[in-house]
Amino acid sequence: MVDDHSAPLDAVFHALADPTRRAMLRQLAGGARSVGDLAAPHPMSLAAASKHIRVLEDAGLIRREIRGRQHVCRLDATPMHAGQEWIRHFEKFWTERLDVLEALLRAEDAAKGETDGQDGN
Amino acid sequence: MVDDHSAPLDAVFHALADPTRRAMLRQLAGGARSVGDLAAPHPMSLAAASKHIRVLEDAGLIRREIRGRQHVCRLDATPMHAGQEWIRHFEKFWTERLDVLEALLRAEDAAKGETDGQDGN
Repeated sequence: MVDDHSAPLDAVFHALADPTRRAMLRQLAGGARSVGDLAAPHPMSLAAASKHIRVLEDAGLIRREIRGRQHVCRLDATPMHAGQEWIRHFEKFWTERLDVLEALLRAEDAAKGETDGQDGN
Repeated sequence: MVDDHSAPLDAVFHALADPTRRAMLRQLAGGARSVGDLAAPHPMSLAAASKHIRVLEDAGLIRREIRGRQHVCRLDATPMHAGQEWIRHFEKFWTERLDVLEALLRAEDAAKGETDGQDGN
């Protein structure tokens, strides 16, 4: 299991903890984008959008390439893998809860079926 | 796919972005713990540890039960599910990178094999 004390893991989860940054990653999933393109859909200044891009860059989720006067950003999803691995170890806990819920619903249906059957007699 | 503008997702990723909080969740995976038990392994004041516990509670990852003078915390991993689902949609990107890397290594091995074969002649 990924160690709890992991600066890259801190950076990835921190990067994902904001709706603007998640939307930017989704934009980049469609292909490379300039900083201007990434900033455009968000109701904030270019400076504010640039700060979000910097956070994504610090987490290793974006690679920036400078082409003349344009900064082109590309997605690098690799650091998300460690985040997913960390969460995966808790999967059984929510699966167990869903199993219990399903069992309760089935028991309820069965009880209801019996009552309905009795009503029919 | 989970919407990018999701306050619960913000809260879950924010909660996971800290090594102390990740370690506390790991402790809770072993069963319920008192606030004191959760705080004990971490080199910080009880007040500082309590703040971390509050962040986990706000994200819905901890349920607190008050038994007399003791606060007992239990894990509720369910909110992590949405986090995992969000990340899962990027899985293909790191998988593709690993596939490319594997193909490169194989091509290199094959080229090396050919060169070795020529050396042998």
